[in-house]
Amino acid sequence: MSTEITVPQTGSEARRLIREGKFSQPTSGVAPGYVQANVAILPKDVAFEFLLFCQRNPKPCPVVEVIEAGEVEAALTAPGSDIRSDVSLYRVFKNGQLVDEPNTLDSHWRDDLVTFLLGCSFSFEHALMANGIDLPYYGTDRNVPMFITNIATAESGSFAGPMVVSQRWIPSDKVVRAVQATSRFPDTHGAPIHIGDPAKIGISDITKPDFGEVWEQSTDDEVPVFWACGVTPQSVAMASKPQLMITHSPGHMFVTDLKDEDLAVM
Amino acid sequence: MSTEITVPQTGSEARRLIREGKFSQPTSGVAPGYVQANVAILPKDVAFEFLLFCQRNPKPCPVVEVIEAGEVEAALTAPGSDIRSDVSLYRVFKNGQLVDEPNTLDSHWRDDLVTFLLGCSFSFEHALMANGIDLPYYGTDRNVPMFITNIATAESGSFAGPMVVSQRWIPSDKVVRAVQATSRFPDTHGAPIHIGDPAKIGISDITKPDFGEVWEQSTDDEVPVFWACGVTPQSVAMASKPQLMITHSPGHMFVTDLKDEDLAVM
Repeated sequence: MSTEITVPQTGSEARRLIREGKFSQPTSGVAPGYVQANVAILPKDVAFEFLLFCQRNPKPCPVVEVIEAGEVEAALTAPGSDIRSDVSLYRVFKNGQLVDEPNTLDSHWRDDLVTFLLGCSFSFEHALMANGIDLPYYGTDRNVPMFITNIATAESGSFAGPMVVSQRWIPSDKVVRAVQATSRFPDTHGAPIHIGDPAKIGISDITKPDFGEVWEQSTDDEVPVFWACGVTPQSVAMASKPQLMITHSPGHMFVTDLKDEDLAVM
Repeated sequence: MSTEITVPQTGSEARRLIREGKFSQPTSGVAPGYVQANVAILPKDVAFEFLLFCQRNPKPCPVVEVIEAGEVEAALTAPGSDIRSDVSLYRVFKNGQLVDEPNTLDSHWRDDLVTFLLGCSFSFEHALMANGIDLPYYGTDRNVPMFITNIATAESGSFAGPMVVSQRWIPSDKVVRAVQATSRFPDTHGAPIHIGDPAKIGISDITKPDFGEVWEQSTDDEVPVFWACGVTPQSVAMASKPQLMITHSPGHMFVTDLKDEDLAVM
């Protein structure tokens, strides 16, 4: 008898199966059309500075919801959720060092922790594909290439550092469409931050991403297009070496009840 | 010899003339095309809760910039500014009661005050007029009609209350255009929150606004259209009776160096 994994089709189903230990894969392709979120959990004493960092850098750090200290439910975007159990794999950092990669936060939770749910690129990737733009890594276990740029973020308190971008090859006749399709989603990184020459934003070798995997150019007709990336707030927060910081493990996102179209401005 | 008032044409000119006491009128029509902002100044101990209130209610409370405690310059949107002197008329509230309406904050400033600059409707009103929609009160000393609705804001800490909206009569053949033109400006209230029947959002008499002045319907062809209003965060903050709160006096906005188009998403 073969064992088949049920791929959850809605946000609430995804969270329930993850909480019950019945689904532990990365969430790419899970609950299609539902907004997934990056997770950053920090002590309350740095919460104002971090929220202000996000407000100042909305393209890399679009805030989907904040769960206040003492609360564990994303009441606005995922009623009934519990942030301590509804992500399948977490990472726990102390003073900037990875100390644990647990399936629940039962042994790490504290009442002074504030959870930031930040938009991720899945929503606008759906929009790109719906507009006929092929993303070869999508729905596979591969990842988009990501680069540290020479673009400074606007700092807030101890949070500062360069913007991280994701890069996609876009056929030249689809570049305008790619800008239009992603501009509709300012809460999931929005329009590109750069089109063309990688050197202009401090990327010296496009075959050597700082995170993720290289995506080979297929034809000379393809243009590199760069979007602000949700790795930015995590890397910036990590660089400030907070006493405690908890994130999702890459690819294991928090799935909300929002639909992608709920975030579209037009 | 007649004395003519110089109407400032840029954000920095407006702030300089106001600071030097040479301009003290309301700022409607000042520095056309530059983003003007509502001002809310609160003690740091409620700053996280208020910033989170704004994040949860982006339509009535679009954050343009936050000036942290100990700082007085809007470094990102108005370099060289001083929030203590660059608004021509302020209001000072203690425990929810108006106690002073000064021209500078010299005698009220404290190092624990955090300043929130919030988008105002001037930017999208330019867009409406550019699209052929007439706003009879614009550039006069009259004000747009504003109503308290039955739409609850998403609360944060002690900040909670109903959304306030502004109302404009739009010819029926311009309603679609009005939605499109304002959707481009999510940081200055964005798309309408309601079109048509005022009763649906708890407004019982459209001839009796809660703030501002009535705007009479000209013809049966005009439709009432409602936008989230920047009075919301002030009224919500006031209702929480903070120990100290400082705002601009109505109509006397803070003028930034941003251009309206800087805030457009498309």
